[in-house]
Order: sequence, then structure tokens, then C-alpha cells
Amino acid sequence: MTTVPSVHLDIDRIRAAAKRLAGVAHRTPVLTSRTLDELTGATVLLKAENLQRVGAFKFRGAYNKIASVDPADRARGVISWSSGNHAQAVALAARLHGISATIVMPHDAPPVKLAATSGYGAEIVGYDRYSENREEIGHELARQRGLTIVPPYDDWDVMAGQGTAALELIEDAGPLDSLLVPVGGGGLLAGCGTAARALLPDIRLIGAEPAAGDDTARSLAAGERVSIPQPRTVADGQAATTPGELTFAVNRRQVDEIVLVDDDAILDAVTLLFERLKQVVEPSGACAVAALLARPGQFAGQRVGVVLSGGNIGAAQYAELITAVN
Amino acid sequence: MTTVPSVHLDIDRIRAAAKRLAGVAHRTPVLTSRTLDELTGATVLLKAENLQRVGAFKFRGAYNKIASVDPADRARGVISWSSGNHAQAVALAARLHGISATIVMPHDAPPVKLAATSGYGAEIVGYDRYSENREEIGHELARQRGLTIVPPYDDWDVMAGQGTAALELIEDAGPLDSLLVPVGGGGLLAGCGTAARALLPDIRLIGAEPAAGDDTARSLAAGERVSIPQPRTVADGQAATTPGELTFAVNRRQVDEIVLVDDDAILDAVTLLFERLKQVVEPSGACAVAALLARPGQFAGQRVGVVLSGGNIGAAQYAELITAVN
Repeated sequence: MTTVPSVHLDIDRIRAAAKRLAGVAHRTPVLTSRTLDELTGATVLLKAENLQRVGAFKFRGAYNKIASVDPADRARGVISWSSGNHAQAVALAARLHGISATIVMPHDAPPVKLAATSGYGAEIVGYDRYSENREEIGHELARQRGLTIVPPYDDWDVMAGQGTAALELIEDAGPLDSLLVPVGGGGLLAGCGTAARALLPDIRLIGAEPAAGDDTARSLAAGERVSIPQPRTVADGQAATTPGELTFAVNRRQVDEIVLVDDDAILDAVTLLFERLKQVVEPSGACAVAALLARPGQFAGQRVGVVLSGGNIGAAQYAELITAVN
Repeated sequence: MTTVPSVHLDIDRIRAAAKRLAGVAHRTPVLTSRTLDELTGATVLLKAENLQRVGAFKFRGAYNKIASVDPADRARGVISWSSGNHAQAVALAARLHGISATIVMPHDAPPVKLAATSGYGAEIVGYDRYSENREEIGHELARQRGLTIVPPYDDWDVMAGQGTAALELIEDAGPLDSLLVPVGGGGLLAGCGTAARALLPDIRLIGAEPAAGDDTARSLAAGERVSIPQPRTVADGQAATTPGELTFAVNRRQVDEIVLVDDDAILDAVTLLFERLKQVVEPSGACAVAALLARPGQFAGQRVGVVLSGGNIGAAQYAELITAVN
């Protein structure tokens, strides 16, 4: 028997998150592009979370989670594990709360990410990714030190924070017929989907997932969480092996479709955003644009919201990717 | 004896340009960056002309010039010569006026630029850059066909159009102590300087020029227009060999300083804008940021306006530049 968690995510929780984030997170702009409109026949409205603090939507969820913790617990500090945008998001959100953050990161994480995370004042605990398990280390440290865990996606307050991106998009851009959101662990899609469906009951909710890492697509098709081997994809922010328990419970209720896109399509979207919109968007961040372009005609005549989820890619790494694809 | 042209550029002419451009040009956003503020001790306010139509400030001047031409003359069409952003600006501005544009471009211009220019409906007349003179070809065609010439910078209406960038920046961002503007032919600096000095009489006006192409710096020092050999610089939009006659007449009256920056400093600024602001800015477009960073301390405590003049660089070309510098 599968136990289905009861869902504690709704528009009220997202509105509460929006209040906490007001004046702290950037209200990122909604970008438009004649090129994208011409290619799709749609009116495309892009929520530019690449311009969010720490360069990704992750700041919303991390800050909202920390702000939601009981103050006495919060004062003892927070802990998380991530080699990506979530690490920096937790580090900055903790600093803004005046508390300590501990981040478990592999010894061989990119120096630029280690530097960015410690630059926000976090304590970094290194581990060997080949012989040690970061979750075990994180849970053990949390227990020893009384730290609160800030999960990257599988948490109601994290999801509520991510949902504020769609809330702002619809408030600023007006009604939408469809919303396309990148899906990795599923927190952004769950949060944004919940906000969008509450405000626009007929909206079509579409997740955009790398073809090489199609755990959410498979899980929705199977009606239960499926695990896949560690994916190899240029979209490193979406390389999950299985959906979150809570995110899946939300997404299975409301997502209409998952569009799978291969790495070449993702890099084409990165290049289009670079050359036409002059925006730096990392591969995971451009995944929903790739999904939009993968379905020519499907969105004609519609008002389509698309979340650009992040822009954290080094210039040198970007150069390598673009050189490889051209 | 040197004849000094009488100056026909003032804030009224720039305000008239702003009226013509309203609803046609983008009112580009003013971007801020904690990183730049921390590096300089200043409040840095970036006018993001990389997000302008055709990807550069050039659209402002070209459109204003064409809108200023007598309608009977305008109906016969316009002509220009350029292998850069000005070509696309003239092509689009002509199309928006419903008239024809002829652009003289070298046969070996980058295919992407030829395609972009013809994509806006312009007729491209090719020439051999080693044996033919594009200005002669342009003037001859203008005479034969009765076309109006749209110069890239040395024209009062072109300069007035460019000046609207500073007008908007000050209207949107408030008072400034200094304004840094890239200088190639000098039209952007002349227009922006005129607007800024009219609104803020005490503002310090600073041009940012590639060290390898220092014709304006030399000319201002000499008190007359000086010619230099064709510069080799990564900032291809600033590779002028001598200032314009009219632009120099304006700039010599009001510019306080030219800061020279080398190519490495320009590419460092491009990289910073990429990695921290997630903005695609071409080397010429980032030159004023390089100048800002070249003078640590000079701007501490100030409110500093900086024009990001354009963002037209292909992803593959960008990758080459970044790979070369890293």
C-alpha cells in the first residue's frame, strides 16, 4: 500500500510566503521577446528568476523556510546539502536572518561555488562524494548541533516560497493560458502550479524536464514515484533521480503534461536567450524555453508564462558548452 | 585656420527626440548591482541599452534622424554604411517608417549581421573592402536614387536621439554625480553629455575609450581632431580612427575626462556583467564599466550613471573571446 501524504500547500501558504519575501527577494521582471512570440505565435511572458538574488529562484524557498522556523530553533542555525544554487540560497537567507548556516558540499565542488557559498558566510563541511553520503552527514550534524534542515525542495515552506514566482508573474503579466516550469526535484513546479491553478483554474500546467533525467515524467505516467539512474545532462540543476515525496503528491494532482527536451534543445534555448534577449540563463534555467520551442503550434494564440529559473553559469563554463554545441 | 562648427544640439532637441521615440524605442531598465557597488563604494546605475531594440543604443539615433527628415525626402528612402549595430538600427527604423533602406556592407561581413540587416527588410549593397570605398559608394547611390544619408554619429538628429538614453536614465534613477559613456565616433557621449549637463550642471562627464583606439583622448588633449591608424581592439564598435567633426565640437566643450581601458579590462567587465548581472553586453558596450573599475576609489560615495551601450555578440564569438582571456 502506498501512503499518499496529505497536501499542505495552498494559495494562502504561498501568499504568506510572498509577504515574508516582500522587500527581501527581488520582484524579478517579466521579459518579453518578439523573437519568441514570432517563433511560437504566442504571447510569451518570461519570469526572469536568473535575476533573483543568488541568481536563481532557490532564494525564495530557502528564505521562506528559514523565516517559518520557530525563532528559538532558528537561532541555533540551519543546515543543508547541495552543490548548486540551493547552497548559496540557504547561505544568504541565513545571513539575512543573522543566523549560522552549515552547508555539506563535496571536497571537489567547483571552487567558484565553494567560494560563493562561503562568501555568504556559511560554514562548509566537506565530504568525499565517492565514499560518504551527504544526507547522513547532514542529518548527523543537525542532530548533534540542533540545526534545522532546509531541504532543497521536499518541504511545504520551500515549495510555498518557490510558488511566489508564479504569483508575481500572474500579478504583473495578467492571465495566462499555459505555464511552463522546469522540473528537477519538483518544488518549483509544485509551488508555481499551486499558485497558478488557484488564480487561474483553467490554466494548463506543463513541466519541462531533460530527456536524460525523466524521473518525473516516468513517475507521473506510472502513478507512483519511480527512480532512475543518476542522469547525465547539461541541465545539472535538474539531475534528480526521483521526485520528492511531497512535490510528487502535489504535482500528480495538478500537472497536465511533462515535455521532455534533449540537451541540444536546451543549449539552443540558452543560445537564443543569450543572443536575442541578452540574458544569461543556465541550462536548467532555459529548459522551459526549450520545451516551449519543442512544440511549435501548440501554444499559438495563447498567453504563455515561462519560468527562467536561474542564471548561475560561469563565463568560461558557458564558453565550453557553446563551443561544444556549435 | 580651423573652422569650428556651431553647435545645434541642446536639451530641447533631445526632448523632441524623446517624444518621437516614445512608444517606439524601449525605455530600457536601469540595473543595479551589489557587486559593482561594493567594488566601487558608489551607487552604480546602469542604463541597459543592450536591451534596446536591435540590441544597441543605435536605434535611438537612427530612428530620430529618419523621423526628422522632410516627409517627401523620406519617402524616397534612406541609405547608410556600417558593418555593425548602426546597419540594423537604420534597417529597422526605416521599416517602422514604411520606407526603403539601403545598407552598404562589405561582401565578407559576418553572415549573421548580413542576415539580421536583410531580415529587417533592408537592401544590402555589397562592396570589396580592400579595393572600394564604402562612403563613395554610399554617396553615389544617395545621389543617383535621391536617398537620405543616415550617418552613424556625425549628425545633430542622430546625436539628439542617442542623448535620450541619458535623459531617461536621469528621469528614472534620479540625480547623478558622474556619468560614464563609451566613446567611438562620439555621438553617444555628445548626446548623453548634453542631456546630462543640461539637467545636472555639476555632473562629471567621462568618456570610456579603448586604449588601442584613443583618437578622442588624443584629440581632446590636442584641442583638435587627430587621426590614428585603424585600431585593433576587441571593442569593435569603438574602432574609430578620428572623432566626428560635429561630435568633437560638442565633446570638447563639455567632457571632463576620457578614461582609457585595455582589452583585458574590457573583457573582465564583460565577464563580470555576465556572471554577476546575468547580462549579455558586447565589449564596446562594457567599456564604461571597465573604466569605472579602472579607477577604484575615484567614485566612492557618488551616484554614478553608466551606459551599457549594446549587447550584440554571437554566443560562439563570445565563447571564443572568453576562452582566449581565461
